[in-house]
Amino acid sequence: MNPNVEVKTEYLKNIKHPSDVKLLSENQLEMLCAEIRRTLIDTVSQTGGHLASNLGTVELTVALHKSFNSPDDKIVWDVGHQAYTHKLLTGRYSDFSTLRTENGISGFVRPDESEHDSFYEGHAGVSISQAAGIAAANAVKGSKNFAVAVIGDGAFGNGMVYEAMNNAGSAKTRLIVILNDNEMSISENVGAMARYLAAVRAKPDYYRFKARTEKALKKIPIVGKSLSNHLFKLKTALKNMIFSSSFFESLGFKYIGPIDGHNIPSLCEAMDSARMVAAPVVIHVNTVKGRGYDFAETSPEKFHGISKFDINTGEPLSSGDSYSDHVGKILCSFASKDKRICAVTAAMALGTGLEEFSKTYPERFFDVGIAEGHAVTFASGLAAGGMLPVFAVYSTFFQRCADQIIHDGALQRRKLVIAVDRAGFVGEDGETHQGLFDVPLVRSVPNTTVYSPSTYAELGKAFYNAFYKDNNLVIIRYPRGSMPLTGEDFEAASESFEIVGNPQADIAIVTYGRLYFNALDALRILAEKGIEAKIIKLTKIIPLPEEAINAAFGCKNVFFFEEGMKCGGVGEALGSQLLERDFSGRYFITAVDGEFVSHASISRLMEKYSLSAEKMAEKIEKEVAL
Amino acid sequence: MNPNVEVKTEYLKNIKHPSDVKLLSENQLEMLCAEIRRTLIDTVSQTGGHLASNLGTVELTVALHKSFNSPDDKIVWDVGHQAYTHKLLTGRYSDFSTLRTENGISGFVRPDESEHDSFYEGHAGVSISQAAGIAAANAVKGSKNFAVAVIGDGAFGNGMVYEAMNNAGSAKTRLIVILNDNEMSISENVGAMARYLAAVRAKPDYYRFKARTEKALKKIPIVGKSLSNHLFKLKTALKNMIFSSSFFESLGFKYIGPIDGHNIPSLCEAMDSARMVAAPVVIHVNTVKGRGYDFAETSPEKFHGISKFDINTGEPLSSGDSYSDHVGKILCSFASKDKRICAVTAAMALGTGLEEFSKTYPERFFDVGIAEGHAVTFASGLAAGGMLPVFAVYSTFFQRCADQIIHDGALQRRKLVIAVDRAGFVGEDGETHQGLFDVPLVRSVPNTTVYSPSTYAELGKAFYNAFYKDNNLVIIRYPRGSMPLTGEDFEAASESFEIVGNPQADIAIVTYGRLYFNALDALRILAEKGIEAKIIKLTKIIPLPEEAINAAFGCKNVFFFEEGMKCGGVGEALGSQLLERDFSGRYFITAVDGEFVSHASISRLMEKYSLSAEKMAEKIEKEVAL
Repeated sequence: MNPNVEVKTEYLKNIKHPSDVKLLSENQLEMLCAEIRRTLIDTVSQTGGHLASNLGTVELTVALHKSFNSPDDKIVWDVGHQAYTHKLLTGRYSDFSTLRTENGISGFVRPDESEHDSFYEGHAGVSISQAAGIAAANAVKGSKNFAVAVIGDGAFGNGMVYEAMNNAGSAKTRLIVILNDNEMSISENVGAMARYLAAVRAKPDYYRFKARTEKALKKIPIVGKSLSNHLFKLKTALKNMIFSSSFFESLGFKYIGPIDGHNIPSLCEAMDSARMVAAPVVIHVNTVKGRGYDFAETSPEKFHGISKFDINTGEPLSSGDSYSDHVGKILCSFASKDKRICAVTAAMALGTGLEEFSKTYPERFFDVGIAEGHAVTFASGLAAGGMLPVFAVYSTFFQRCADQIIHDGALQRRKLVIAVDRAGFVGEDGETHQGLFDVPLVRSVPNTTVYSPSTYAELGKAFYNAFYKDNNLVIIRYPRGSMPLTGEDFEAASESFEIVGNPQADIAIVTYGRLYFNALDALRILAEKGIEAKIIKLTKIIPLPEEAINAAFGCKNVFFFEEGMKCGGVGEALGSQLLERDFSGRYFITAVDGEFVSHASISRLMEKYSLSAEKMAEKIEKEVAL
Repeated sequence: MNPNVEVKTEYLKNIKHPSDVKLLSENQLEMLCAEIRRTLIDTVSQTGGHLASNLGTVELTVALHKSFNSPDDKIVWDVGHQAYTHKLLTGRYSDFSTLRTENGISGFVRPDESEHDSFYEGHAGVSISQAAGIAAANAVKGSKNFAVAVIGDGAFGNGMVYEAMNNAGSAKTRLIVILNDNEMSISENVGAMARYLAAVRAKPDYYRFKARTEKALKKIPIVGKSLSNHLFKLKTALKNMIFSSSFFESLGFKYIGPIDGHNIPSLCEAMDSARMVAAPVVIHVNTVKGRGYDFAETSPEKFHGISKFDINTGEPLSSGDSYSDHVGKILCSFASKDKRICAVTAAMALGTGLEEFSKTYPERFFDVGIAEGHAVTFASGLAAGGMLPVFAVYSTFFQRCADQIIHDGALQRRKLVIAVDRAGFVGEDGETHQGLFDVPLVRSVPNTTVYSPSTYAELGKAFYNAFYKDNNLVIIRYPRGSMPLTGEDFEAASESFEIVGNPQADIAIVTYGRLYFNALDALRILAEKGIEAKIIKLTKIIPLPEEAINAAFGCKNVFFFEEGMKCGGVGEALGSQLLERDFSGRYFITAVDGEFVSHASISRLMEKYSLSAEKMAEKIEKEVAL
């Protein structure tokens, strides 16, 4: 597609309901797909978002709405980042330019946006469980409607997919699984399942061959006595094997595929066949990530989730270093001196900054696929084998290994390091991706140390402590993006806490992580108004440093600011400690309280949740005046 | 085995190290196995514990120690409740009578008990991940040692097994998986995988047949022109299929089996073969749960985890109703009137009291296998389909669905009920099974209501509210065992909180759940000493009832007692609320703080963690005197 040629949206703009798709001819559907692609590229170049995955599912989505009747039939989008076309076809075309902006169209599916969105989605591997539940409910109710899960091959490394298929494969419900096979998870796909799918994919005539083989078997001549009995048995056994040989069939699913995922008639034919089968069906669809936009097709990983970019060059409009990059460098540096250091990722080598590590130390680098639970326990096994493993994972996906953190991490009383990336607000990805729960999830776990460094220097120090000082489970959490300020001031690293400003001030701002930089600004704003305060900056947040508690105890007014959930957060931990010591001052916690946080820019979220420098200063000024 | 015949332990008592097993002849090993069985039955009849699973793994364990060299080779026991024989063979015979008693031998494996125990274990499905990690570490180090995971077929419904095999199957490490197939998880096994294994099991000559078929294929005559080309392709294709037809082989594992799990020479032969293979291997072993003790062989589920019992009758020495039983009855009662009510369990129909429900409402009962993550998300799908689902799960296994609770539960803003059984101390099962983390894990989750009823009446009320009043995720948690006191006093049900004792008293005991009964006793003890206190009993613990906070706020001394973790618990939540209101009284939290809780009786744990009535009264008397 030449990005400079204007494409009209005459078909797209007239689609007000997905059933309108059914009215278009084959040629018109092709035109529609071209219009959709152009809309996707135009919009995402201006808003940022998931591009490659959406370009891959254009025809698939059109075919789904042609074959099924949403919302009676429920389409469940795994992860939900490939559903832009679905949004365009379900009445959201006119608002689509607001993609990922505050109060605008979400980058993921959301039932509050449309009755055609079945669930709030954002995590991989859950869609088959969800669709199986709907299909089971339909069966109880006697409904003939279908539940259709659309799920990528990358998600097939996740255990819930297997749990769901194992469960649903033994129920005769109207469940259809569309395996959207683009040979990628987010990074290149790994594991035995990926190899298995590649083998199936490489034989497009394999399933036609099956049918021919069945006929041929019926004609096998019986020659010679010694072979005849055995061949008879062979015939039966082989027939059984042929018809239950696929992985999916062993889990109780019928299998149709592989289908060209960019050919609408083939897709519709497969879906219509699946509707006829009285059992759960997998339709295996081959798609090309980034299809129709050369830059994305060539570098699908770069265009998986991308910020605003130049359509003509495919280059992002902004870039910079990040906490993730620094973690990657820090780990490479330690690994060069200590052969025990290993890195584990769950399909996020690029996002977590581990690319260089993976190339420099391939024998100590483990990408386990989208399998966060296994990742922790596997790392625990590496530790039991004498290694020093680090599992790097986004905060939102860290939620997926809570039990492994308790049972296979802390309980084992071995050194194990979890690097929690994207901790705090992540911005435009919204509710399903905010990193707000990791602290409450681990606060109760014994034998655990948690660092939340503010600066790159502190990040390095925290890893040093994790490897060579602390003797238990260590969690090091850091935000998305780059350090807000740099310079000499931030080169010294505190390892547990630090007091900034006048230590005698009886107003204290207590905070940790990236909010430290907002607190610094707040201190300046307050000083201008003649209010003297100090910052108690925590680097080690679990357990709380005793002296930090003492420093807060001496203050008349203590303001805790936390980029995370209030309930179960560090603010409550400090409050509880102060209360037990009969603290007589006033104590205020500002944090996210009792709600999920929608999509908006990080700076906007800081303001909205009263965590910006201005809001900090405002709160303090107001309370101190009382 | 006749339980009345005394069996000497002349072989067993002389085994001080597992390598001693290697010195015994085939006949002697059989004698050893008989001695082990008798020891297991004798001991468990007196201590309670896991019997059926351990009787099933006697020969398997002996063979493991004959073929491998522990601790250089690492044996990893999935769940760890089938490792009693392993304990007897690794120097713990003389202490074995202390099984499951305080400071005695644990019912699960623990590295602090023996260098032959690789991990603290208690949750199903983690062993392959652990062993894969050790095997990977061995590969990095260039060690030739093996890592051997021993895992039941029930655990094969868990997603981590699949994640681990998918990952490990593409690595050429010295990993051996023993699939201990006894056709049971804890209840009877469910799902497509169970059917698959049954099919393999039913064909013991299947794998011999494979070898013969290979030979036969080499001899297939080429007859007639039209068939010849196709038959040539057929030969190749079928050969490929035959040799990659099993589920395990599609995940990259070599497969040996099925093997008679009670035949030591067969087992050793299989293990020795596995050692020769330069890739991960699955050895599929058929065992009989309860083997050698008629009562257990006939009712393996009853003898899975059993309290003390009469060897001659197989009958437990105590019994009684329980919170679980009541939940089962409550759900049946609601389900009879409301056809939307469904029950979901993860292989715990018996333990969670759902047996009657499963028989009365089979079409609305879903046992998804040991797959807690899928269970929540599947239930969320049922809710999306218009049902009112209840997922009943033990608190310790609730940890395994933390992300699903957030992402597929609360975030969806639909009604979904989770019944959390065994919340609080569970006693003799120890560290891996205590239900102490469920409250901290959900405290930060928005759109969530949590009830922790004290009485059966309140339990019923909580379910009523969950179904017909609250409009979000509702968690109802209750302890193991039965209500400590019964009678008229406990027939009225509070639905959020209740004040017991003199409302004017300025000493308050705040608590919830089963501790209420201890608090009642404490009140009496204090009254005898002339100290007047009141109880603020919470039924709804999240969110905290406003009036309960107000009631505490009015007191000079507030004592919070919590059968759970202090960090992130409800005590901190109340403290935080009081602090924000400038509470001027004193506040004390008594809970489990910063440690995992080992095995001991529940009453002993109440005392140890200062939660018994006496300890409550003692604490209050002391603090009030200051």
